[in-house]
Amino acid sequence: MLTGAEVDQTAGLLTLRERGAFTLFGTEATLSALADNPIFSVLSADVVMRKAIRPGVCFALPGAIEAELFLVPGKAPLYLEGDNPDLAAETEANVGIELRAAGARLVFIPGAAKLTKSIAERLREADAVLFDGTLFDDDEMLAAGTGVKTGRRMGHMPVGGPDGALTALAGLARRRILIHINNTNPILIEGSPQRRAVEAAGFEVAEDGMRIEL
Amino acid sequence: MLTGAEVDQTAGLLTLRERGAFTLFGTEATLSALADNPIFSVLSADVVMRKAIRPGVCFALPGAIEAELFLVPGKAPLYLEGDNPDLAAETEANVGIELRAAGARLVFIPGAAKLTKSIAERLREADAVLFDGTLFDDDEMLAAGTGVKTGRRMGHMPVGGPDGALTALAGLARRRILIHINNTNPILIEGSPQRRAVEAAGFEVAEDGMRIEL
Repeated sequence: MLTGAEVDQTAGLLTLRERGAFTLFGTEATLSALADNPIFSVLSADVVMRKAIRPGVCFALPGAIEAELFLVPGKAPLYLEGDNPDLAAETEANVGIELRAAGARLVFIPGAAKLTKSIAERLREADAVLFDGTLFDDDEMLAAGTGVKTGRRMGHMPVGGPDGALTALAGLARRRILIHINNTNPILIEGSPQRRAVEAAGFEVAEDGMRIEL
Repeated sequence: MLTGAEVDQTAGLLTLRERGAFTLFGTEATLSALADNPIFSVLSADVVMRKAIRPGVCFALPGAIEAELFLVPGKAPLYLEGDNPDLAAETEANVGIELRAAGARLVFIPGAAKLTKSIAERLREADAVLFDGTLFDDDEMLAAGTGVKTGRRMGHMPVGGPDGALTALAGLARRRILIHINNTNPILIEGSPQRRAVEAAGFEVAEDGMRIEL
């Protein structure tokens, strides 16, 4: 299941090219981005099915899971964005996914330029949300000297600050778990002021191998 | 240093996209294949230099290493090969590299459809050669039911058999080390007849973390 065609979402496909059979789900826009790039043809069409999913239309995943994609403000993948990308467009290029099984609901939003009312509404009754935690401060990469872009330029709202995720998601979903965390983000450092702020706001920081039971 | 633009040679570049500065060496053909694919633009041109190297022309690498690329029979990358690929063309799409430092010489040939006289000549006085060990038997993947192609169809000569690497490289280079070994290749199994044949012929099987001192 792909929520977009950005490199961090698709590069791993290249290690799945050993003719193992699986189905690749994504929006038409995401699957088109893959189809347009010859390198992804190494996932041979006779073993890897592509299935285009329309946002807002429920579909079934193995394990009696009901799933639904929904639009999230964001931008096209870096390598396809062109000269003047729309940084917070609601298009099929960037989506979130809601999973429902046995009465539990989990929402996965790895990249969000902002939280719309519609998404906030969706999160209100969710048991868990995994949410874009790329940067704590919008200008964190510039301050660290590791990059020339702000988070917003990359289509990510910050975690902190008045427009950040801690504020926007306050009171939404039973568990709020930050994912997609950049290596400059101080919430990765246990005991840092930013990590403490995240924990005080009732958010969790995801880690490798994390299991979530709802 | 890229010896071709096949996925196993280039996919790792996508994990080097964190704006770390480095220089990417390869033939014009290899660098063009990258330039033609938008996904590799994530290696920003202002930090990652591309340097085209002409086969047969010596050039310097850091650490007082002298290097030289040379043509090796092979084919274009799978995702660029088209309908009727030449499987043993000598073009800039597939090269080997020779490294020379402090009087020692190492030759790296991860993919070879056959061993030409010119390459054999180059290996004669080498201290070590790292050589294409993809499959032991040409039809090994078909026999194992893991693939529909022979090794030769993929541009790789087998390790065993009358036209294989053990025979072709006999007596060449002081150390002969097999690399680029497919997961169907029984030389990976210690004690297998094929592994014993490799060892009896004076070849080594490469392993992760291997250090080679010349």
